[in-house]
Amino acid sequence: MSDKEIPNIIVGRLPLYLRSLQRMKKEDRQITSSQELGERIGISAAQIRKDLSQFGEFGKQGTGYTIDYLIKQIRRILHIDQEWDIAVIGAGDIGSAVARYKGFANRGFRVTVIFDGDPGKIGAQIGDFTVQDSAYMVDMIKKTGIRIAMIAVPAAKAQQVADQLVEAGIQAILNYAPINLNAPSNVRVQYIDPSIHLQRMTYYLE
Amino acid sequence: MSDKEIPNIIVGRLPLYLRSLQRMKKEDRQITSSQELGERIGISAAQIRKDLSQFGEFGKQGTGYTIDYLIKQIRRILHIDQEWDIAVIGAGDIGSAVARYKGFANRGFRVTVIFDGDPGKIGAQIGDFTVQDSAYMVDMIKKTGIRIAMIAVPAAKAQQVADQLVEAGIQAILNYAPINLNAPSNVRVQYIDPSIHLQRMTYYLE
Repeated sequence: MSDKEIPNIIVGRLPLYLRSLQRMKKEDRQITSSQELGERIGISAAQIRKDLSQFGEFGKQGTGYTIDYLIKQIRRILHIDQEWDIAVIGAGDIGSAVARYKGFANRGFRVTVIFDGDPGKIGAQIGDFTVQDSAYMVDMIKKTGIRIAMIAVPAAKAQQVADQLVEAGIQAILNYAPINLNAPSNVRVQYIDPSIHLQRMTYYLE
Repeated sequence: MSDKEIPNIIVGRLPLYLRSLQRMKKEDRQITSSQELGERIGISAAQIRKDLSQFGEFGKQGTGYTIDYLIKQIRRILHIDQEWDIAVIGAGDIGSAVARYKGFANRGFRVTVIFDGDPGKIGAQIGDFTVQDSAYMVDMIKKTGIRIAMIAVPAAKAQQVADQLVEAGIQAILNYAPINLNAPSNVRVQYIDPSIHLQRMTYYLE
């Protein structure tokens, strides 16, 4: 990997390219072009070529991209040529759905543990998982070396959980609680809040 | 509302301001500043002032913003001074979690119907909802005038469902299926795909 810093916004588009390429592969396709990829994603071909050129030379003028090869390269760039273990915090509806979610397979992730603090939920079975007591969360995460967590607890508890996760060594948090989290700058946080997405659309509805 | 077109990226930040303001209100706060709001969200105070100034004068120099008033104004701008009905398509884990999700309350939305095509799911009870047969989806959405839908079906079926929703008059789609959707330009689409968010973070993990 080169030393130059790639803008966030470019890094943010790579997963979209990868998802489209993986779908093409599922369709038994072998070659694609920045043109076709762009049409599928709604981004210009020029932008895609420019983005990819930040990371190396992945295609040949006129022959396009070998899908398999480009998938491999983007997976390597995004550090998902390995599978990352994920801890889910919160065994409510969202946490349970995420823990059972089949969509992580082949995308670089697998949920390995789910925690909750509610005595009524601890020990319950969710898919293949037994809900663990969050009192042991920090220790268990430290011991297993898990570095990615998803927070699916109520908003009022999310910051406290985030603080514990940081203490446990978590470096990337996907937060489903509808609240902004404070975390040290070396810990990445991304957010999923469906109301935010919906509000971004109703603005345009008369 | 003025005639000038506000950039997407500014519209996209308003829901974040609103969420923070609503949280302050829950904490029984009455006045805030762009400074404080910025610290909570991780955006500069200047940016917040600039964004809000696109829509009008909401605060006074030196006295800050009245939280209640600013909430009301942003809700009006985002057209969530009303409650929007939402149709959920897909009664799997994600669709079920979304249908039962309490987080839409007070944020402008309520799920009013959930559809699935699987005979094993049609008629099942999910929270307060009975799963409806998606064979009647287009007609029911047309009749009820619902304009917002969430897609929570497998990727392979998502485009077909989206086409039906467009036919039914849906104007905003929140898509949980991990696939890019083609929709006419008058139909807004937003995406929730946790793997995409996770991949945006693993890039930064060594």
